[in-house]
Amino acid sequence: MSLRISDEVVASVTREPRSEAPSARYGNALPHDHKVLPPPKKTLFEDIKHSMKEIFFSDNPAKEFKNKTTGRKFVLGLESVFPILSWARGYSFKSFRGDFISGLTIASLCIPQDIAYAKLANLDPQYGLYTSFVAPLVYAFMGSSRDIAIGPVAVVSLLLGTSLSDEIKDFHSHDYLRLAFTATFFAGVTQLALGVLRLGFLIDFLSHAAIVGFMAGAAVTIALQQLKGLLGIVNFTKKTDIISVMSSVWGTVHHGAKKRKKLFWVAAIAPMISVILSTLFVYITRADKRGVAIVRHIKKGVNPASASEIFFHGKYLGAGARIGVIAGMIALTEAVAIGRTFAAMKDYPLDGNKEMVAMGTMNIVGSLTSCYVATGSFSRTAVNYMAGCKTAVSNIVMSIVVLLTLLVITPLFKYTPNAVLAAIIIAAVISLVDTEAVILLWKIDKFDFLACIGAFFGVIFRSVEIGLLIAVAISFAKILLQVTRPRTTVLGKLHGTSVYRNIHQYPKASQIPGMLIIRVDSAIYFSNSNYIKERILRWLTDEDIQRTGSEFPRIQYLIIEMSPVTDIDTSGIHAFVELYKSLLKRDVQLLLANPGPVVMEKLHASMVTHLIGEHKIFLSVADAVASYGA
Amino acid sequence: MSLRISDEVVASVTREPRSEAPSARYGNALPHDHKVLPPPKKTLFEDIKHSMKEIFFSDNPAKEFKNKTTGRKFVLGLESVFPILSWARGYSFKSFRGDFISGLTIASLCIPQDIAYAKLANLDPQYGLYTSFVAPLVYAFMGSSRDIAIGPVAVVSLLLGTSLSDEIKDFHSHDYLRLAFTATFFAGVTQLALGVLRLGFLIDFLSHAAIVGFMAGAAVTIALQQLKGLLGIVNFTKKTDIISVMSSVWGTVHHGAKKRKKLFWVAAIAPMISVILSTLFVYITRADKRGVAIVRHIKKGVNPASASEIFFHGKYLGAGARIGVIAGMIALTEAVAIGRTFAAMKDYPLDGNKEMVAMGTMNIVGSLTSCYVATGSFSRTAVNYMAGCKTAVSNIVMSIVVLLTLLVITPLFKYTPNAVLAAIIIAAVISLVDTEAVILLWKIDKFDFLACIGAFFGVIFRSVEIGLLIAVAISFAKILLQVTRPRTTVLGKLHGTSVYRNIHQYPKASQIPGMLIIRVDSAIYFSNSNYIKERILRWLTDEDIQRTGSEFPRIQYLIIEMSPVTDIDTSGIHAFVELYKSLLKRDVQLLLANPGPVVMEKLHASMVTHLIGEHKIFLSVADAVASYGA
Repeated sequence: MSLRISDEVVASVTREPRSEAPSARYGNALPHDHKVLPPPKKTLFEDIKHSMKEIFFSDNPAKEFKNKTTGRKFVLGLESVFPILSWARGYSFKSFRGDFISGLTIASLCIPQDIAYAKLANLDPQYGLYTSFVAPLVYAFMGSSRDIAIGPVAVVSLLLGTSLSDEIKDFHSHDYLRLAFTATFFAGVTQLALGVLRLGFLIDFLSHAAIVGFMAGAAVTIALQQLKGLLGIVNFTKKTDIISVMSSVWGTVHHGAKKRKKLFWVAAIAPMISVILSTLFVYITRADKRGVAIVRHIKKGVNPASASEIFFHGKYLGAGARIGVIAGMIALTEAVAIGRTFAAMKDYPLDGNKEMVAMGTMNIVGSLTSCYVATGSFSRTAVNYMAGCKTAVSNIVMSIVVLLTLLVITPLFKYTPNAVLAAIIIAAVISLVDTEAVILLWKIDKFDFLACIGAFFGVIFRSVEIGLLIAVAISFAKILLQVTRPRTTVLGKLHGTSVYRNIHQYPKASQIPGMLIIRVDSAIYFSNSNYIKERILRWLTDEDIQRTGSEFPRIQYLIIEMSPVTDIDTSGIHAFVELYKSLLKRDVQLLLANPGPVVMEKLHASMVTHLIGEHKIFLSVADAVASYGA
Repeated sequence: MSLRISDEVVASVTREPRSEAPSARYGNALPHDHKVLPPPKKTLFEDIKHSMKEIFFSDNPAKEFKNKTTGRKFVLGLESVFPILSWARGYSFKSFRGDFISGLTIASLCIPQDIAYAKLANLDPQYGLYTSFVAPLVYAFMGSSRDIAIGPVAVVSLLLGTSLSDEIKDFHSHDYLRLAFTATFFAGVTQLALGVLRLGFLIDFLSHAAIVGFMAGAAVTIALQQLKGLLGIVNFTKKTDIISVMSSVWGTVHHGAKKRKKLFWVAAIAPMISVILSTLFVYITRADKRGVAIVRHIKKGVNPASASEIFFHGKYLGAGARIGVIAGMIALTEAVAIGRTFAAMKDYPLDGNKEMVAMGTMNIVGSLTSCYVATGSFSRTAVNYMAGCKTAVSNIVMSIVVLLTLLVITPLFKYTPNAVLAAIIIAAVISLVDTEAVILLWKIDKFDFLACIGAFFGVIFRSVEIGLLIAVAISFAKILLQVTRPRTTVLGKLHGTSVYRNIHQYPKASQIPGMLIIRVDSAIYFSNSNYIKERILRWLTDEDIQRTGSEFPRIQYLIIEMSPVTDIDTSGIHAFVELYKSLLKRDVQLLLANPGPVVMEKLHASMVTHLIGEHKIFLSVADAVASYGA
């Protein structure tokens, strides 16, 4: 229906007395002979191919495969799935020394954390260790980050613990364990699918701000839970002093490590030392008989197979898949954030989609070998980096240490007091509360701050899932705002130049008599085309009122600076036609400055260039002003 | 975690040998003394107020109320809710003549359509007439469109018919009727809420393309349904000839009317004449006794009250609310599209939010007086416009004619053959298939075409709701694409100017030796910050490879043209810091050209200006090139 207007408008245009072409009026006013060009013609296929490439293959993964023999392509393909094949060849002893030391360090950090985190997920402690054995091994062969330390993490463990026990109340039951493996399997499938389908960009929709708030909320929730455990013990024993003092000392040290690099060693090995000392203490004094809660159950030996445990049908399949998808996404977000951060610090490329494939495979393999969801850990990765790791070999070293632990010393952890594990968890998660980042959010972007706070309180007062939902919703609201209410700016001329700039940013910029210059700062799409049209008309009305009574003549020309308008769709074209028509009624002429290639193509295709007049489309605002300005 | 990098980067910057300030190297190379300025400081409150205003009150509705006395404000407030109060004062006899004629015309069109559409909704025919009596009256007092013709429409009737009978199979039951009123009530509440909360922009998310496809799909579905009824009759009677000939003649005329204005009268009154002739024919020959299906049940008299019929609790409340929300949104989309189209043609302002309030009130009142969902009708609005309507008085005239019909002649419609109603529906809906628009979609924007086709096949092969869902999903996908994959462009200098333009659009534009100039065409947000960073680095790598071996020196400077970057969030700031760091490792210096006010403010707040160096931020690309170019 609305398209039919354009016929009428075209008809009315032909009735309008055309103003003479600029050249007739101004002679050689234009200092150059450049015209606004439509882009070189592309076929539909080229066009689609190009778009698809930017969406899914913006990193140009096929680049390396070009002009290679089939054999070489096969090797390259293998190397692209298993990056270890390419970097292992150049691996030196010097690198190994760094990896060995850092591997030992993160192992000493991960063993107590694993035992503690497994409890967060309501699983027996050995499952944490299982996860730290298989997952890092798989990752080392397939991952491309050189710094990330793989294993169970606090937030995902908490998420699993709460969502799994929503489904199965009795977490000592065998079904609970089976559901955990099922969720892990589907977490892996989700990650693998995102990577293979090259949909990795989807995780970008969880904004940094939302993650900061979510992590802090999860950390506070975990800490409060653990604190209850830590304080609950006060009534039963006098051991509290040692433990609380130890944990507070260690907490301080841990915090200090962030500031002073050299102290990070203390933070890295303190948990292990706390565990060893407290375990020894309990074992010698048999404090467990006097009410100190201890780990009690922990199984010796390597991971048992668990393929047959996964629910591939039955009533828990749906729940397992749902929890798995959420856990997989959260785990991925964490891993990718960590991976990117450290890759940027050492400036090596990190392929997001490849990382997802590695994570996915690792969790699928994990779900078959009694692991639960693993991902990159903030605290251990930082320690790994500071201990001087060079490659993923540090993960292999850690994995071997964990294996030895499982085979030999696991039973000793039986006497580890729960309180010390609680202290380890608290100390680890408290570093997830990044107050500096929150302050920066407040300073830089209030909307980001809102997303952060929303996620934080959502997690604390409702649940991990609600917090996540709030964070995603606020992030989306921001995007919707961006696409529905783009900025439009009035431009003025900076004296002594041919540069036109925002008159609010540059108060010295002066407007041109009889002209209004507006820049539209967004692609014109269905979501904003009406707003843009109406906003431009409102600028015109406002400026007309403001200029009435001043020495300025009535506005006769509206120049739209189109440089930032990268694209326009059919709704945008309609809005343009309607704008043109409204301007016609007000006796104002429409001039366009610098429409981009895509826009020019579409203005041509829809005959809008013809409607407006080709001679009213200029290379720059300066040209338009030179041609029509008084 | 990632924020802590910046400290390290800042530290490394201080180690980097600073290049001399441009003035030292180039003397007075800059022809002017303009510097990039941050915007004037605003308080947080001003900032939030401004944002809120643009989001919710971009049309500045309070403008008229400024500097008025309380009494005057009250009158203005009343007029803003009931626009009739303001325009009725200046209403002239000449306007009334136009409105009277067009009112009669649309009444003659709406009566047969009402009876037919009520059948689409599985309701007795009188409910269509009821709806055409109350709804237009309410709208005339509250609406601001001068051309829209209000009443039941085919697509919404079909939507109601299918979704209501999904809930209650037996559509002769009283509960079915009650559910219809319930849905109408909630449709009104939805519309009113959107208007009052000023969330009208939400309907912009259904793109024009999606609506074209959705309408066409609904039209074809309806036409096929009716065709079955039309053909089914062939076996029972010999009256087909008259009817089919009549309908085909009329169809042709109707189509012709779109082309030639004068023939629209034929289209406007043909349905009424068909109905009268065929009804008379059946009444005289008693063809109904020989198998011609007729309307049979139609009740005489004015709308009965129906407030007590609405399900405000019980098991149908949820279904009624759900169907109501969907029907309300669809009805609104149709009404707003029509309203805007005709407002643009006569160039009067149309307040979207006010329209929603009017529509909402109209449907709430309707649900209390035995009406079902009413909205603006495409076909009747076009007839109204062409018959020369001036104001909403034409709706009042129509409403009175419908009232008289209800009071006096309704029983005569008992003998109207169903086949002629089917023909009327087919002829009406077939004009909803806008093939010209589809062709234009294909020409202008392939993605829009896809959305259109998706909605079309969704409606045809699945259901109205699935079609709608597909349309919304594709529209959203487009928005997501826009915000995740913004364009970046390499710029070159047009010879003889200081203008820098896309080198693909202007092949003559030449790159500057030792420099790479890239324009980022979008706000930098969490959803695209990583992509932008990586895309810029890829441009750098690609260009470096391309320039190797040519006489061009190595790229030493990367200039980012920031004009289109209207905003940046914390993720964007992080990406910038990471980009800066990567460039540092490659020994490339980062220069910024023309960052906007908001961006400058945030670069300042995050100390990135300090990191990059204030002297590396320029007013324009030309300035940056003049300062650092070889």
